[in-house]
Amino acid sequence: MVEWAGPVGHRDVVAAAQRLRGVALRTPVMTSRTLDERLGCKVFLKCENLQRAGAFKFRGAYNALALLDQRARARGAVAYSSGNHAQALALAGSLLHVPVTIVMPVDSPAVKLAATRGYGAEVVTYDRFDPDSETREAIGHRLALERGLTLIPPFDHRDVIAGQGTAGLELVEQLAGASEGEREDGNNDLLDYVLTPCGGGGLLSGTATAVKGLIPRCRVVGIEPDAGDDATRSFHTRTLQYVDNPDTIADGARTPSLGEITFPLVLERVDEMATVSDDALVETLRFAMERLKLVVEPTGVLGLAALLQGAVQPPAGARVGVIISGGNADLAQLSEWLRPS
Amino acid sequence: MVEWAGPVGHRDVVAAAQRLRGVALRTPVMTSRTLDERLGCKVFLKCENLQRAGAFKFRGAYNALALLDQRARARGAVAYSSGNHAQALALAGSLLHVPVTIVMPVDSPAVKLAATRGYGAEVVTYDRFDPDSETREAIGHRLALERGLTLIPPFDHRDVIAGQGTAGLELVEQLAGASEGEREDGNNDLLDYVLTPCGGGGLLSGTATAVKGLIPRCRVVGIEPDAGDDATRSFHTRTLQYVDNPDTIADGARTPSLGEITFPLVLERVDEMATVSDDALVETLRFAMERLKLVVEPTGVLGLAALLQGAVQPPAGARVGVIISGGNADLAQLSEWLRPS
Repeated sequence: MVEWAGPVGHRDVVAAAQRLRGVALRTPVMTSRTLDERLGCKVFLKCENLQRAGAFKFRGAYNALALLDQRARARGAVAYSSGNHAQALALAGSLLHVPVTIVMPVDSPAVKLAATRGYGAEVVTYDRFDPDSETREAIGHRLALERGLTLIPPFDHRDVIAGQGTAGLELVEQLAGASEGEREDGNNDLLDYVLTPCGGGGLLSGTATAVKGLIPRCRVVGIEPDAGDDATRSFHTRTLQYVDNPDTIADGARTPSLGEITFPLVLERVDEMATVSDDALVETLRFAMERLKLVVEPTGVLGLAALLQGAVQPPAGARVGVIISGGNADLAQLSEWLRPS
Repeated sequence: MVEWAGPVGHRDVVAAAQRLRGVALRTPVMTSRTLDERLGCKVFLKCENLQRAGAFKFRGAYNALALLDQRARARGAVAYSSGNHAQALALAGSLLHVPVTIVMPVDSPAVKLAATRGYGAEVVTYDRFDPDSETREAIGHRLALERGLTLIPPFDHRDVIAGQGTAGLELVEQLAGASEGEREDGNNDLLDYVLTPCGGGGLLSGTATAVKGLIPRCRVVGIEPDAGDDATRSFHTRTLQYVDNPDTIADGARTPSLGEITFPLVLERVDEMATVSDDALVETLRFAMERLKLVVEPTGVLGLAALLQGAVQPPAGARVGVIISGGNADLAQLSEWLRPS
């Protein structure tokens, strides 16, 4: 048991989990014999694509809004997001009766724009390719100032990180509840590895805080798309690195860099970083649909792709948790990617 | 509690469930707030698309093979099937060390042909549009005779029906285990309706035997595609009706008629039949992917489509079970069906 010093401790994740009880779904942990045989290890898929609003982001957004005081709740919240945080905050706002405004790229997947509005949020769009346009950060801060809204960033916020970490906490709890007896190798850790997608590092640092708090020897690995490898470079150089509008289908991992809060947490608590190609993401989307019967968005399969591509190779017999982070894929895009070549 | 007289009783389903314990997956029961709000009732989706080999068919095939004596097992089994029964029997054969031969239409979805061979079965194909070709029944019976194989039909067999009925039995058990306390209307039945796809009537009659055995007032409804409405007409006229190669994307429901065993069971135990259009199936496939994040094959969404299309309209507040029967969709076909028009 490691409590962790710093802005987000293990107890913050546990408190967030209590706040989310009966509100967030306890998403299923799926296993696949096909997958285990192919990889030579035992893989546990934490299906946050089946979470409310279609992604783990709901956990962080709800936790952050629930911690606002009454006056701040009445004034409302604003966020900028490439998509899933937007839907998540919109849903959390509707559940907690907090008015929500969202700043989104105008080229976000149509399904994400529609869903955000469907949850009752006001959407303000911007063009991420227009150098003369206000940045999303600038728009968010301006709206916060003009309207007295509280800015809830998509990852670089302690309550968001703590909430996002509850997916990993829950995975460990579910494995503990479904105990299969002692392992043959004498090591009784429930997990040897946990792989999670990395965009801004909120899910990654929250997962590391939660999982390594309970299983200190478990290796937590963050996975990025090849084109958006800023966090991997930041991790290895121990200096914050940036990437500008990376060309990848993993739209949830297009964030330019880790954050002020997440970067030190990643350096302290994460064991390893790796990247995967967009081709591997497409192959993994196909595997998820054909074999697991699950719809996952490209960012959501980063961890599974790293295993299938061999970017991360746990030893034979290892117990490997994978956070399947979201399922809000645009069906038209999905059809395009999966078109037989 | 109704035991039922006749070839398949409630105790046969219970015995099959014991045989399948630890072999078939206890597939999850999913719920969706979006769906419940849209329909005004409480829907429980029994996700047999997540079953081993991708469909409920595994339950019936395994049960039938497990009941063969040692000599019959050693000689092997043969089946004709539009697809899922083929994969199911092939997998069951590999688990029970019974050699399996499958007679399949040459135009079966590629993913089903490949998976059947992948489980180690021998595949014999035939052309279902060639009037000069031997029928699949004739080929199956000839192989049975020539090689001493036991024919395991896809639905018209008491052990297959009993095995297929275990999905419904399990659904009721899972709801009993997740009891939410007394209902407001004073009726404490776990389910008021169960909807299941109907091809040859094995799943339908097995489900009725299982569910109405435990909840006699529950209405069991079979759903067919409009073009393959033979069972609906047979049900209403109480005379066996046929349909020839119906033009529908629901390939699992292209069977020409109910069987000698299933027809009387359907007449005795099923409460209602309804049909849905292929357009409704496509809309429901889209709903399943976008909102439920599940890959389902067209036949698999028949029950859900009947609710969404309004072909079956349970009263407000009803508790409705839906068997999502299979998920072996060909991704290329799926992309084609879901292409934006």
